[in-house]
Amino acid sequence: NHYLICGFGRVGRNIAEELDATRRHYVAIDIDTDCLVTARERQPDLLYLDGDGSDDDILLAGDIGNAAGVFAVTDDDGRNMMIALTAKQLNPNVRVVARCMEVRNSPKLRKAGADVVISPDFTGGLRIASAMLRPGVLSFMDDMARSETAHRLEDIPLPAGFASATVGSLDLAGFDVVLLGVREHGRFHFNPSLDFALEPGQVLVVMCAPEARKALERAISR
Amino acid sequence: NHYLICGFGRVGRNIAEELDATRRHYVAIDIDTDCLVTARERQPDLLYLDGDGSDDDILLAGDIGNAAGVFAVTDDDGRNMMIALTAKQLNPNVRVVARCMEVRNSPKLRKAGADVVISPDFTGGLRIASAMLRPGVLSFMDDMARSETAHRLEDIPLPAGFASATVGSLDLAGFDVVLLGVREHGRFHFNPSLDFALEPGQVLVVMCAPEARKALERAISR
Ligand SMILES: [Ca+2]
Ligand SMILES: [Ca+2]
Repeated sequence: NHYLICGFGRVGRNIAEELDATRRHYVAIDIDTDCLVTARERQPDLLYLDGDGSDDDILLAGDIGNAAGVFAVTDDDGRNMMIALTAKQLNPNVRVVARCMEVRNSPKLRKAGADVVISPDFTGGLRIASAMLRPGVLSFMDDMARSETAHRLEDIPLPAGFASATVGSLDLAGFDVVLLGVREHGRFHFNPSLDFALEPGQVLVVMCAPEARKALERAISR
Repeated sequence: NHYLICGFGRVGRNIAEELDATRRHYVAIDIDTDCLVTARERQPDLLYLDGDGSDDDILLAGDIGNAAGVFAVTDDDGRNMMIALTAKQLNPNVRVVARCMEVRNSPKLRKAGADVVISPDFTGGLRIASAMLRPGVLSFMDDMARSETAHRLEDIPLPAGFASATVGSLDLAGFDVVLLGVREHGRFHFNPSLDFALEPGQVLVVMCAPEARKALERAISR
């Protein structure tokens, strides 16, 4: 139940910090030995493998068979594609999230097996443009993404045993939860009315604090 | 009322695409002539200046005195700092948004004059980690950030002439607007109750479609 971070540059190290913050285990993989050694100096218990994440032997040495996920986050889209492909071949159940440098490569990365593809330079460019054109919005989104204590965007799946009910009957405001919408079979119902019917398998997209999320999850799983 | 994009690498070009999409004018500035020439081939009406954005003469050639904003988005934090400083010296009213490579440099960039500092590699790392650990949430945030038509996070300032009213009296649901909170003097009131008092100077943080935003803005400025 550990993670493999393939590519331990700036993006990979920021991922590692988030995994540390949420107490997950991981192995750093990079062909650049220097960057691994430097990282180990700052963090003596860092586990790393010196090699190419698209190489079967390296992923096997990282115990891919028991891994929960693989981050394919080098700065080379072709290599990230190879990593995604190799990881899924060795363990079809592993979740793969890939970085892409050029947005146009995103469909190819998905085809190679990446479950999600993210382009920091693309979304970063959008965020920077937003900060210029729509001041104010961004700092709130940043807070949301960053802080463990602040309100954040959360997914709350309605469990199989959930007894059908309307949005109004859930008293979301009482939990200090703001409902943005309901996702269902890839469709998103924005701002559903109070008589919208909730059913197992749907996902509530909400904004709330972590404790509010826990309280709501307890309530809907009863 | 144009923008100067200092640093026309991958991030700078993504900013340019967003400015094109929202019909803003800009000048691309980079010391790398090749990247400018290549960009001009794809976009024959591209305005560019071949030089260093931290150089007074280059910013003056870009008519900084009449610019609305400067993007300091090279891949070098020190240079971005120089650009921010120079831009504010030449035009104290210009808005400066800076990219930072290492999060630890963010306070220095602010000190140099950047109004907002954003680190694509940092927020990108967070997003990638989120996509692994909290599947589902991210695609919604990406949709939000990307699409012009979809629902997005918006700031709606209450204008000076706004007659004080409660949250409940605004009938936000009727506008198909979801209220996340109210910002006031840097504080954020999450999920305010229906009897929360709204006053000029506060900012509503909402999620809604662009048309809903326009309708609400018309209503509150009457
Ligand atoms: Ca690397
Ligand atoms: Ca550049």
